[in-house]
Amino acid sequence: MNNLNEKEKMLSGKIYDATDELLMEEREKVKDMCFEYNQLQPSKIEERKSLIKKLFGKTTENFHIEQPFYCDYGYNIEIGENFYINVNVVILDCAKVTFGDNVFIAPNCGFYTAGHPFDVEQRNKALEYAYPITIGNNVWIGAGCSILPGVTIGDNTVIGAGSVVTKDIPANVLAVGNPCRVIRKI
Amino acid sequence: MNNLNEKEKMLSGKIYDATDELLMEEREKVKDMCFEYNQLQPSKIEERKSLIKKLFGKTTENFHIEQPFYCDYGYNIEIGENFYINVNVVILDCAKVTFGDNVFIAPNCGFYTAGHPFDVEQRNKALEYAYPITIGNNVWIGAGCSILPGVTIGDNTVIGAGSVVTKDIPANVLAVGNPCRVIRKI
Amino acid sequence: MNNLNEKEKMLSGKIYDATDELLMEEREKVKDMCFEYNQLQPSKIEERKSLIKKLFGKTTENFHIEQPFYCDYGYNIEIGENFYINVNVVILDCAKVTFGDNVFIAPNCGFYTAGHPFDVEQRNKALEYAYPITIGNNVWIGAGCSILPGVTIGDNTVIGAGSVVTKDIPANVLAVGNPCRVIRKI
Repeated sequence: MNNLNEKEKMLSGKIYDATDELLMEEREKVKDMCFEYNQLQPSKIEERKSLIKKLFGKTTENFHIEQPFYCDYGYNIEIGENFYINVNVVILDCAKVTFGDNVFIAPNCGFYTAGHPFDVEQRNKALEYAYPITIGNNVWIGAGCSILPGVTIGDNTVIGAGSVVTKDIPANVLAVGNPCRVIRKI
Repeated sequence: MNNLNEKEKMLSGKIYDATDELLMEEREKVKDMCFEYNQLQPSKIEERKSLIKKLFGKTTENFHIEQPFYCDYGYNIEIGENFYINVNVVILDCAKVTFGDNVFIAPNCGFYTAGHPFDVEQRNKALEYAYPITIGNNVWIGAGCSILPGVTIGDNTVIGAGSVVTKDIPANVLAVGNPCRVIRKI
Repeated sequence: MNNLNEKEKMLSGKIYDATDELLMEEREKVKDMCFEYNQLQPSKIEERKSLIKKLFGKTTENFHIEQPFYCDYGYNIEIGENFYINVNVVILDCAKVTFGDNVFIAPNCGFYTAGHPFDVEQRNKALEYAYPITIGNNVWIGAGCSILPGVTIGDNTVIGAGSVVTKDIPANVLAVGNPCRVIRKI
């Protein structure tokens, strides 16, 4: 355990120091890339795709990420086929954020893998943790949703607009609300 | 029915193909216009107004749209006199979005006319529907609200911050919450 | 009372005219500064810090404001040591917005001191009020929260993601929800 560096701790779900030099360099580089992405004229589709391919850990041929888009590391984001993100979406990808095929994300959503300890002394030292977020196939996430650390959303599920998803949501359901709860089977 | 093109289907509340070539061209052009708008220095008030007049379906003389602002088609947005939108507002105007006179929109609100079918097979083919949103006169919508497809909000009504408006809200009330419910008469 | 100008009324919690010439000039200048800030390449850390020092009423040496960031007047914002704001945060600082030491603000949060009267006739004349927001020391505010006019949040408190904070929250608690309520002591 003590032999892990801060990045390894981050990627394995352990408490890590977010002010670690390597992590700060990586975030700075990625924030510059997101900035560059958001400054590209929207109709420059190929340049935009090419930049996302450099930014994300895994992409496909058929995806579209509207601008503006914000993330922290990029390499932790993996997307499937036929993937669509609408405007003004934030992904704090300190841990893996994995999207299946045919996923549609509405505007103003956030995927937040990172959290801070409740212990004030730890938190003030910039210690953090990050848990992976996993979105199945054929998932539609409505506008203005927040997806919190460690959440898995099952295949074919629809998350209603304005939901705050604090816990796993199974496959084949409609779920909504703050906190997000299953309403019915689809 | 079968004689309608995809744009006509979209504008008449029918299921349509969002990847239709004409619709994609229109969105691309409008996203470039929004980008251009958001790149204008805020104090260039007259240039900003002039661009919104080209973008929206109907405007007046007395309006102010803070930046950044995002929409899909523009021509489906119609605003009244003394209209104000604060920062970071999104309007997915696949159907008409009509605002009366004296409407104030707080930051981070979204007006979403568009939805996807719950049926996975249809959804994965990029089929969508859009229902009009209608905001009456003298309406104030608080910060961070999401207004969903088909919603009408009556005259003189106030929507509290953070509301998710899933159904019609009558005139002369205060309504808040997720989902948004009437609290009292005003 | 009648001798107060509109800015003095704004700063003292009285009803004021938001279209007052001085206030409009001040907002226009600050919106240009926020625009300039948001157009700086993220890795230009020192230029960014220097601009925030000109913009805010009080800063420290150890703070980081991610882009984009939006505010109205700037001079009403006062921050403590070890202060961090993540992406896409809005502060409508028509009244003072004061942050203690060791405050962490997640993405997509809004701090809204300003409100409009419920009386339609007053509201349509652009009359507004603004009440101060005060955030204690060691506070962590989760993603997508809205903090409303007049709210005070006590030391060491954590506000869960997606909360709409309509009333004061005491020190040393976890509080979440819409509206935000205390869940437990920390």
